[in-house]
Amino acid sequence: MPHIKLPPGLPGISGLMVYRPDTAKPMNELAHALLRGTESLTAGERELIATFVSSLNDCHYCQSIHGAVAAYHLGIDEDLVRAVKANYQAADISAKLKSLLRIAEKVWHSGKEVDLSDIQNARQQDASDLEIHDAVLIAAAFSMFNRYVDGLATWQPDNPDFYRSRGGVVARDGYLNLKRDPVAFR
Amino acid sequence: MPHIKLPPGLPGISGLMVYRPDTAKPMNELAHALLRGTESLTAGERELIATFVSSLNDCHYCQSIHGAVAAYHLGIDEDLVRAVKANYQAADISAKLKSLLRIAEKVWHSGKEVDLSDIQNARQQDASDLEIHDAVLIAAAFSMFNRYVDGLATWQPDNPDFYRSRGGVVARDGYLNLKRDPVAFR
Repeated sequence: MPHIKLPPGLPGISGLMVYRPDTAKPMNELAHALLRGTESLTAGERELIATFVSSLNDCHYCQSIHGAVAAYHLGIDEDLVRAVKANYQAADISAKLKSLLRIAEKVWHSGKEVDLSDIQNARQQDASDLEIHDAVLIAAAFSMFNRYVDGLATWQPDNPDFYRSRGGVVARDGYLNLKRDPVAFR
Repeated sequence: MPHIKLPPGLPGISGLMVYRPDTAKPMNELAHALLRGTESLTAGERELIATFVSSLNDCHYCQSIHGAVAAYHLGIDEDLVRAVKANYQAADISAKLKSLLRIAEKVWHSGKEVDLSDIQNARQQDASDLEIHDAVLIAAAFSMFNRYVDGLATWQPDNPDFYRSRGGVVARDGYLNLKRDPVAFR
């Protein structure tokens, strides 16, 4: 049961966003700018970073929904999402994305842990300043989203089909103007 | 030296915000909604929660600037800000604010650490659902801001007068439409 009275039938961050629209609006805009930006990193790569950090934080809702969105963007490839969460260094992804996931892993623990060797490694894999910036901010932003969703003990469905269905909608429509009513989650 | 090439003369998050305006806009709107909201918690109390979490993350820029903003809102009381950072349970603040700082301390580590006894304690001190929500989200948001500012190794001035001066501007004007040019930081 959530720690505060939230509108019923809305899982994860959805109930929180309906509860407090003033903070929901900028949070959705931030997610959209960070996860849909198609300069340089693809939406699939961005969602993988988000999913990875959410799995480090053990946030069931966030890693499930963003994992599903990532899988859609990557051609419905749930195996790849699982592989990145299990051991990204061994996963079938680019060396550049591995170097950015390493930076995200550091940021997950503390921003101070990112050191020059992490940055040099990413540059050697042709990561741009903007890609390094976005990897850091995606990891930082999910340090927020995960704590928000778990800190208020939101309802987080178990059924993977729920996340597959919702993930398809998010992958198609993005984070602005997402419908958040109980019917949309049936 | 910052890990990526940022506009010169802009400390902390300011250089990052000029570098990436698409993400800066929602981040400023989120800070404004969370830290200036005057229903229930005062701006001073909100800034104290932000300062406290930033000090737990050892983020020099964030704890200094938000500490200065908090001090302004609280009647230029830097001693109180120092006392909260050193030991909030012994500080001269309300029992309600102590209960919310306890929740923020849990969220700082992990959202999952907030348990029913923390919530019950806050309710016994007359904290409302909205106050509990905002304490969680302020702590979560500064888990992001701190990682962003430190993860990219931004320039963070030592001089306390810098933060006093800038803190006065932020306390007066809020987070929307803040000027971010080198002249504003002289």
